[in-house]
Amino acid sequence: MIKAKIVGAGGYGGVGILELLMRHPEVEPAALVDVVDAGRPISDLYPHLAGYCDLEICTPDSDRACETYDVVFFSTPDGVGMQAAAGELERGAKVIDYSGDFRFGSAESYADYANFIGREPEHASPDLLEEAVYGVPEFHRDAIAGARLVGNPGCFAISALLGLVPAVGAKLAAPGTLIADGKTGVSGAGKKASPVFHYPARYEQMNAYKLGGHQHLVEVEHELSARAGRRIALTFTTQVVPVCRGIMTSLYGTLEEGVDYARALAAYRDFYADAPFVRVCDRSVPAGTHHVRGSNRALLLIDVDERTGRLRVISHIDNLMKGQAGNALQNMNLMFGLDETAGLTEPGRYP
Amino acid sequence: MIKAKIVGAGGYGGVGILELLMRHPEVEPAALVDVVDAGRPISDLYPHLAGYCDLEICTPDSDRACETYDVVFFSTPDGVGMQAAAGELERGAKVIDYSGDFRFGSAESYADYANFIGREPEHASPDLLEEAVYGVPEFHRDAIAGARLVGNPGCFAISALLGLVPAVGAKLAAPGTLIADGKTGVSGAGKKASPVFHYPARYEQMNAYKLGGHQHLVEVEHELSARAGRRIALTFTTQVVPVCRGIMTSLYGTLEEGVDYARALAAYRDFYADAPFVRVCDRSVPAGTHHVRGSNRALLLIDVDERTGRLRVISHIDNLMKGQAGNALQNMNLMFGLDETAGLTEPGRYP
Amino acid sequence: MIKAKIVGAGGYGGVGILELLMRHPEVEPAALVDVVDAGRPISDLYPHLAGYCDLEICTPDSDRACETYDVVFFSTPDGVGMQAAAGELERGAKVIDYSGDFRFGSAESYADYANFIGREPEHASPDLLEEAVYGVPEFHRDAIAGARLVGNPGCFAISALLGLVPAVGAKLAAPGTLIADGKTGVSGAGKKASPVFHYPARYEQMNAYKLGGHQHLVEVEHELSARAGRRIALTFTTQVVPVCRGIMTSLYGTLEEGVDYARALAAYRDFYADAPFVRVCDRSVPAGTHHVRGSNRALLLIDVDERTGRLRVISHIDNLMKGQAGNALQNMNLMFGLDETAGLTEPGRYP
Amino acid sequence: MIKAKIVGAGGYGGVGILELLMRHPEVEPAALVDVVDAGRPISDLYPHLAGYCDLEICTPDSDRACETYDVVFFSTPDGVGMQAAAGELERGAKVIDYSGDFRFGSAESYADYANFIGREPEHASPDLLEEAVYGVPEFHRDAIAGARLVGNPGCFAISALLGLVPAVGAKLAAPGTLIADGKTGVSGAGKKASPVFHYPARYEQMNAYKLGGHQHLVEVEHELSARAGRRIALTFTTQVVPVCRGIMTSLYGTLEEGVDYARALAAYRDFYADAPFVRVCDRSVPAGTHHVRGSNRALLLIDVDERTGRLRVISHIDNLMKGQAGNALQNMNLMFGLDETAGLTEPGRYP
Repeated sequence: MIKAKIVGAGGYGGVGILELLMRHPEVEPAALVDVVDAGRPISDLYPHLAGYCDLEICTPDSDRACETYDVVFFSTPDGVGMQAAAGELERGAKVIDYSGDFRFGSAESYADYANFIGREPEHASPDLLEEAVYGVPEFHRDAIAGARLVGNPGCFAISALLGLVPAVGAKLAAPGTLIADGKTGVSGAGKKASPVFHYPARYEQMNAYKLGGHQHLVEVEHELSARAGRRIALTFTTQVVPVCRGIMTSLYGTLEEGVDYARALAAYRDFYADAPFVRVCDRSVPAGTHHVRGSNRALLLIDVDERTGRLRVISHIDNLMKGQAGNALQNMNLMFGLDETAGLTEPGRYP
Repeated sequence: MIKAKIVGAGGYGGVGILELLMRHPEVEPAALVDVVDAGRPISDLYPHLAGYCDLEICTPDSDRACETYDVVFFSTPDGVGMQAAAGELERGAKVIDYSGDFRFGSAESYADYANFIGREPEHASPDLLEEAVYGVPEFHRDAIAGARLVGNPGCFAISALLGLVPAVGAKLAAPGTLIADGKTGVSGAGKKASPVFHYPARYEQMNAYKLGGHQHLVEVEHELSARAGRRIALTFTTQVVPVCRGIMTSLYGTLEEGVDYARALAAYRDFYADAPFVRVCDRSVPAGTHHVRGSNRALLLIDVDERTGRLRVISHIDNLMKGQAGNALQNMNLMFGLDETAGLTEPGRYP
Repeated sequence: MIKAKIVGAGGYGGVGILELLMRHPEVEPAALVDVVDAGRPISDLYPHLAGYCDLEICTPDSDRACETYDVVFFSTPDGVGMQAAAGELERGAKVIDYSGDFRFGSAESYADYANFIGREPEHASPDLLEEAVYGVPEFHRDAIAGARLVGNPGCFAISALLGLVPAVGAKLAAPGTLIADGKTGVSGAGKKASPVFHYPARYEQMNAYKLGGHQHLVEVEHELSARAGRRIALTFTTQVVPVCRGIMTSLYGTLEEGVDYARALAAYRDFYADAPFVRVCDRSVPAGTHHVRGSNRALLLIDVDERTGRLRVISHIDNLMKGQAGNALQNMNLMFGLDETAGLTEPGRYP
Repeated sequence: MIKAKIVGAGGYGGVGILELLMRHPEVEPAALVDVVDAGRPISDLYPHLAGYCDLEICTPDSDRACETYDVVFFSTPDGVGMQAAAGELERGAKVIDYSGDFRFGSAESYADYANFIGREPEHASPDLLEEAVYGVPEFHRDAIAGARLVGNPGCFAISALLGLVPAVGAKLAAPGTLIADGKTGVSGAGKKASPVFHYPARYEQMNAYKLGGHQHLVEVEHELSARAGRRIALTFTTQVVPVCRGIMTSLYGTLEEGVDYARALAAYRDFYADAPFVRVCDRSVPAGTHHVRGSNRALLLIDVDERTGRLRVISHIDNLMKGQAGNALQNMNLMFGLDETAGLTEPGRYP
């Protein structure tokens, strides 16, 4: 059995990977680490786990946390993984980090990101940046399979990239015309209570936020630019709506000469022919976030607005699955040579 | 007192105008007409009105319905108002119709609309089309003030137009680059139950629909084109999220040469300087649909994405108020020479 | 115009009375006091009020706060009003307090309450307790009309009392058999964010809390006991469900000898014959919290379970209206000799 | 592999058991039967299943439906199973019926139920009633293990019975004093859209319904009476709140002489010592429907109100799991000699 440690176990990202590992046939969630709630069983924080998993949370410097594990998940904010990953790698673990720490393959790119979000531009482990792989399996499957260290993507980022990369790669849409309009559920903000996510303040409320630029925008542009071989910038509007789970992102771009609906649809189908978790749907299919809730799937609805000459893709994911823990597990499967879908073979439950 | 008749009183659009008329100092809701539930007091259908308004619903051909009223609201589907408006006008009433019947100023334009939505292209009262005024007070205040017949706009349409018309009018954004990404609450679909709005199928669900073209798109393009003096087409994505009341529409367009944030903001402030129900906010203001829920206001958040050279406007309305009954009452006020804000002077209630 | 000061203006109880006073024909909300957010306009905290009310919040010791007002509303936690009420009364104001400070007519009763909730048993203004009136207009209309100082009831308390008092008063049910099963919306907990009211933790969640005894239980028993002339205890289960506004409380009691449905219904109708805000419905009426949302009404559904010989009353209120600010205004109207319904004549809006 | 047929596969009860069987190690869902949507893959109706299960729905008289299966689930309304069960049994299948058809062990008891709900009192297969077992594994484990035919309980019924049976059995509470106050999520009403479950009519709405008696009351009283050896009647209030999944039922009864909290708690712990899906919690545990959502668990919070001498039990289930499909699978496991928890070993997912 692969022994796994989860750092930041008490948050939604931590309990999300825990739930998945509990049903994975070849992994044992062996250590739950957090800086708060140490000494309490995880089922105290998440009573739905009582009797299923009652592991105690331990502090990062506890004996249990310092044992050697096969894989370590950092479900932690920016700045934690970059400090601790090197030590884990030295002990022989493979590392998957949820933050922006390892999503950028060079010190320069990381500095751009850090500047954008107002952090120190120096990375604590710059030597690890080159080997770290950006964890979108649909784009970097082989590199992930060979990696010791993966930077799991942001939820808004992966929702946009899954829809945009084929458009750029297959030259369906003009890179200078890209727009992403994203709507997320509230769980994307994590477990911590705050006035804007207080139930009475959130029910019946829709709003855009971070108009100046959501941090996930940086990795979207970084990935698109890397693939296009030139700098691509896009407008990304991030919005919150009163659901718990789900991201729906509408993607727009002006069609390149000669591209029509059939060609666009074919390009997406082709691009994702071997991707077990991306479902490409033609525009006649009724689609919604319900169709991916609780699963690791992304559902891409492909459309062309012939009247205006525009490509339109609606991307649907569960932000806590393909947008976070599910994708992290998919990465882990690849890193350990397991079936990419191991532990992720079940649909969500409806309704 | 102005005596009002509401046709289609049993639906959300009908009860919405009824609620407003009940608190209007100069109007008396005098007849409630519908093709179903005749003989039942309206408070049977809407028990929150019990004791406040217990008027009986009557059929369209009942004695009560056939009396003369000062104003008639048709909260009815396409095709009803065009049949009945002429008779009302002959009896001396002023008419406000909620459907697409009188939103287009010529038989040709109406035929385009009718073709788009799959109806017969012939209008039943083509002679009335020329005098009918498209009921966006912010654009056609004087014409509405002099009109006998107003076509109240669609909810998605007014949400988009309030944000787009200044952009086109003040040449802020290139008309060929416009995109509208709209999210509506469920009440926009009306009172009738349907599988997609069944609570378990709707909670936690976001989805785009009518990708081929929502009917409100036609009037948006019609109005924009009329104002620009040339044909303008845009991409409009209509989406539903699990809220009851509210529309948030994100509007995008490539900035015209020389336009920056300050100029764009100033243009919107200027355009709406005399509009009592449009609140123009700079991009630093936290905004959301909560801020307009229950009120006739539109809140426009003005932004420019300098990185990509794009204008971005987030338009927020209550779909049942500025998107329907509130706007209809605003039109009525103008048609009768009343203060534009009469009966509409209260904010909604929070939370 | 009656000049009003609201202490605790920044909370839901404060903004609730502000919204109501804004539409009251004879009152002017003249000072908004709070210990936080001083210097900010109230519309900063509640943007739906922007342009409607932009009064600045001032501190309790500011000049503005220390002027003389005709009425002062204390929308504050236990312990604030008891310190400040005396000063306000001396300056000639009438005072309405939302907390438990003035709901108990004697130092002994207050001490019982204080012990129950774990506060110091000594009241800061014991001499005021005798003159303070418990603010349920349906039970104490005359006393309220003559009072300078009113203790507005708790939301769960009034929801239960409106259903129970006629049962005890008219000897419909045996006092020793009373049970109240209450379900509240989240706004009852106020504006402050907390983990249990975080949107993802609250949607889809129902739970009972304070099984050991909700603080509102004390005033329910106090009032019932006072009316019965002997000690009455009841079981009260308080529960939270994912709605924003609304309390539904199911009340049970074993029928006294000879009482049947007709007699029970008649007793309630009789008891509330002159109560403008209580709607007594027979059991055939479909009822729900929607019917009182946004209004000051209480809807009592009267039932008798003949099979088991039990009285069952379902009480519905809007916890922020009849459960708080609406009831406070009703008290104010009585205290100033105004029509009891002034400023409260409108139904809520639907949906 | 056990081959299973699901009749009524298109409803929530059908898709619920399908989802569970898909993950069961020893069962193959082999036929999906319904009277509507025949010829469509189930994933057309439930797109979250696309690629996971695309079995076509067939009509009840299709060749596929008429093959022999090892187990048949009737997720159908009253009256269907009683017609078809005999045929299935003859072909050698075991049968689990979700309706009231086989919950009553005699023609007389069934007639009482049928009268209560307004159906014909004659059962179509009266000879099967004696052998049919009421499917609450916690009460009838051995009988279920030996049964060919099980009547799966109603969701409200099992939620109440799990809390009441130990109280009656261990003589904790006086049978004549029992009250059940139940609140259900909307999915309990099934997939069919209706005006009261239309999203705008249901959000923010709480209401009681069927005050005259919910059909599940009959089986609660039947089971309690059978166990007590005498007729027991209780008051049962059924209510709907705006959640999708979950039932919380508060249960009340006057304590029998000498019973205190410790004894009550011990009695429940003892009663459910061998029940893998019942979690008995002492009253200090924060509990809610979140803790059982998506799992087959029932969570019973045991309390005694010492002030009033009353037992209070709060029962929490997922109405679609322990209240329906999960419990049906638990029954199937027992009927086939499998581990009672097979296919039911996972907690739900949070949030």
